[in-house]
Amino acid sequence: MPRPGKNSHKLGDIVRQFGGHLIGKPDVTIENVATLAKAQHGQISFFANSKYLSELKATQASAVILSAKNQDLISLPRIVCDNPYAYFAKVSDLLNPKKKAIPGIHPTAVVDASTQVAKSAEIGPFVHIAQGAIIGENSIIHAGCRIGENVKIGTACCLYPNVVVYHECQIGNNAILHSGAIIGADGFGIAEENQIWIKIPQIGRVIIGNNVEIGASTTVDRGAIDDTVIEEGVKLDNQIQVGHNVRIGAHTAIAGCVAIAGSTVIGKHCKIGGASSIVGHIEIADYVNVSACTLITKSIEQKGAYTGAYPFSSHKEWLKNASHLRHLDDLAETIKLLEKKITDLERK
Amino acid sequence: MPRPGKNSHKLGDIVRQFGGHLIGKPDVTIENVATLAKAQHGQISFFANSKYLSELKATQASAVILSAKNQDLISLPRIVCDNPYAYFAKVSDLLNPKKKAIPGIHPTAVVDASTQVAKSAEIGPFVHIAQGAIIGENSIIHAGCRIGENVKIGTACCLYPNVVVYHECQIGNNAILHSGAIIGADGFGIAEENQIWIKIPQIGRVIIGNNVEIGASTTVDRGAIDDTVIEEGVKLDNQIQVGHNVRIGAHTAIAGCVAIAGSTVIGKHCKIGGASSIVGHIEIADYVNVSACTLITKSIEQKGAYTGAYPFSSHKEWLKNASHLRHLDDLAETIKLLEKKITDLERK
Amino acid sequence: MPRPGKNSHKLGDIVRQFGGHLIGKPDVTIENVATLAKAQHGQISFFANSKYLSELKATQASAVILSAKNQDLISLPRIVCDNPYAYFAKVSDLLNPKKKAIPGIHPTAVVDASTQVAKSAEIGPFVHIAQGAIIGENSIIHAGCRIGENVKIGTACCLYPNVVVYHECQIGNNAILHSGAIIGADGFGIAEENQIWIKIPQIGRVIIGNNVEIGASTTVDRGAIDDTVIEEGVKLDNQIQVGHNVRIGAHTAIAGCVAIAGSTVIGKHCKIGGASSIVGHIEIADYVNVSACTLITKSIEQKGAYTGAYPFSSHKEWLKNASHLRHLDDLAETIKLLEKKITDLERK
Repeated sequence: MPRPGKNSHKLGDIVRQFGGHLIGKPDVTIENVATLAKAQHGQISFFANSKYLSELKATQASAVILSAKNQDLISLPRIVCDNPYAYFAKVSDLLNPKKKAIPGIHPTAVVDASTQVAKSAEIGPFVHIAQGAIIGENSIIHAGCRIGENVKIGTACCLYPNVVVYHECQIGNNAILHSGAIIGADGFGIAEENQIWIKIPQIGRVIIGNNVEIGASTTVDRGAIDDTVIEEGVKLDNQIQVGHNVRIGAHTAIAGCVAIAGSTVIGKHCKIGGASSIVGHIEIADYVNVSACTLITKSIEQKGAYTGAYPFSSHKEWLKNASHLRHLDDLAETIKLLEKKITDLERK
Repeated sequence: MPRPGKNSHKLGDIVRQFGGHLIGKPDVTIENVATLAKAQHGQISFFANSKYLSELKATQASAVILSAKNQDLISLPRIVCDNPYAYFAKVSDLLNPKKKAIPGIHPTAVVDASTQVAKSAEIGPFVHIAQGAIIGENSIIHAGCRIGENVKIGTACCLYPNVVVYHECQIGNNAILHSGAIIGADGFGIAEENQIWIKIPQIGRVIIGNNVEIGASTTVDRGAIDDTVIEEGVKLDNQIQVGHNVRIGAHTAIAGCVAIAGSTVIGKHCKIGGASSIVGHIEIADYVNVSACTLITKSIEQKGAYTGAYPFSSHKEWLKNASHLRHLDDLAETIKLLEKKITDLERK
Repeated sequence: MPRPGKNSHKLGDIVRQFGGHLIGKPDVTIENVATLAKAQHGQISFFANSKYLSELKATQASAVILSAKNQDLISLPRIVCDNPYAYFAKVSDLLNPKKKAIPGIHPTAVVDASTQVAKSAEIGPFVHIAQGAIIGENSIIHAGCRIGENVKIGTACCLYPNVVVYHECQIGNNAILHSGAIIGADGFGIAEENQIWIKIPQIGRVIIGNNVEIGASTTVDRGAIDDTVIEEGVKLDNQIQVGHNVRIGAHTAIAGCVAIAGSTVIGKHCKIGGASSIVGHIEIADYVNVSACTLITKSIEQKGAYTGAYPFSSHKEWLKNASHLRHLDDLAETIKLLEKKITDLERK
């Protein structure tokens, strides 16, 4: 069942807007995007991975976005461009524009008189906005969000239902926060005295730059003394934990379920694979890629790719192999000894 | 302190209802279930693991559920059956029936006029149900749940407090969603252009079959273009992340804190251990068991058990052994060299 | 920009209250705490890690907390004590006291008539408190919290927005629960019969002692039959999963993203590193430290430090080394064979 977008556009208009080279008639109407395999009449798809060649050849799409080297693989109407995936993102955004704020405060919302809520902002049911908070123009705060005292939220933000932003935190413009995201809860700051834990008040904030997206149930802790900082353009997937006083550099993307311990600094333009962990108090350079499920235990000073996952195998194979890990040092010692013995034998 | 169930039943009635063979008087009254160790008069327990033999022999339970091979271990009233644990599950459900919907919409709920909420459904305080949503007969939507536009929720579902279901998603009958579950947030779809991330609109849905349970704070992302699908009978524990366009086959059970990256297909009747991770764009066959804390990095075509965790040891031992992992290749080279030298020596 | 605390105190008063030895004038006024690097006039900092020696020497703080062995490193006013970090915690708490309850129930809250809410408690907007629940003196229940039937919450607790506590659970005094924490959702109890999962009703509770802190989006499941127990003084960071029937011993601290499977017992005074996992049905002794990202697969009977993480390296190095892990057993066999051959050669 084809899914209509909220707009439709002709191919010629699309190319005028986003560039690229159109092969085919400009008056083909595009109603939405689709995958090569499922596309139907009126839909546009993209080809960026040779694995999908057979789907490309068989596609029912009305047009395809692809790169110059692939432009002769099909005879359908097609847009030729340098970065088909990014081009596709823009076309999809054109056809599926994000929901605009419907200005106004829902009558069930509780908004303190001291707040500054922009007239163009949309405040949903059961939202609570505490003293001194500021909500920028065209922002949408969906049902059940909790905005703490003196929080600042920029323009054109979207907070999905049940997001919590603790007191004093700041969020830039064009942010998207998904449901269950918790911004500014206390960091894990405790001091041990006589075997009892004493809480250290967490008096820093969380400061989030422009164009940041934060996934569902991701938690970003407030700073212990200074602030936790998420720079502009950072994209965080779901269920990520960001400890207190972490700084994440601009345009870094982090996949789901990553754990980042306190006071660690991550560079700009990094890509961190899902379910990885990063210990506290270290620094990671710009342009570092970390593979999935890797524990980073010390600072990384050079850009590049880093990995540290144990390879899986059948359970039976694993049992045979993994038991040696507890004796690797003995194994290495044995090898050294053998080397010596062989040298002795060779001398004779 | 014994905990009374909400019903009481006689042993004879239980056996009439669920089968099995009763040894002992049928008019013994059972008020609730208990563990062997803590059971008291009026309570029924089960024995399914020989580790608990001494607890069985000492139990104060009024009756025990066990298998034929163990039926002579005690002289208490007992129900003999093939699968004592499953039998116990049914007896416990009989004695502790799930809460029934109390029909009606709480006066504080905000329910759009265009929705179809069954008359027998219970809608709790501060629930928001947006345009076009459908809530089936006998379903309970607890306090603070957010039901997005055009969402369909089947019959006899239970959404615990503060569940969020984004627009267009569909949930089958008899679903249980625990608090903090987020269904249908955007998948992590971003395209890089000039070192900036462009968001790809996530226009797919989440489609959930019948008899699915989803744990607390588990997140299931909506599809990027096509849908994310959870088939019938799937059981998801807490804090699981399901990426966009994942498909989880019927009757698969996944333990807590598992991360599943986008577009991966998991077969039917699989069991995935806690804290495991599964990379994107792979396929896992039916009847695959994955151990706890294992990273699955490529497709699994054969049913069976798979493992990939690093064995723990004392920190001191670990330090000695783990350092060799960064030099395993050198070690293997050394061994090859030694083999050659020995062959040379033997020839002499 | 210096951040004023909510109180100010003179150094002399601080030492009178918390002990330690003051070097310098007692009438220096302290308005808040700060890091050595960012401290300004009117702020007090601490020195507990020699890594920050240059920051100590350059600090603009009005006073510093340090130990006797370091007391001569600077000439600023300073408090000399045995445990500077714990001392700092107390001073920060003095200057940044936790928010006190403003007695009263917000008019939007839905509080069942059968509940007992202390007069001194603060109940925020959109809170739902179900039948029979008890809220102790001076506790704060922030916006959007859901308190189930017959829940007991002690005195001076703070539940941040959108916390959920399921029916029958109990929380001691002075608890702090951060947003998104879910207490008492069903454990993952399912029995397999004919390849279908049958749910086992989860009829236990969660019992939480005094002085416990629970982080954002941490989930603690209710017991299957008996209770899940968190003893006094336990500190749980964010996104931790505690399975049903787990017991966590007093004063144990657990860092973020740890997964603890059902029925496991963790001792007192343990420290569990972030992103670690602990399988079910095992026992961990008192005073055990587990490193980050370690999977504990069997009981630990001795106190001490335990580790099990795979060391990361550049992806290229990892590729070379990790491939051998699937052949470690062959490698070990080869070494044994070589040993035998060498012994044979040596004999000749």
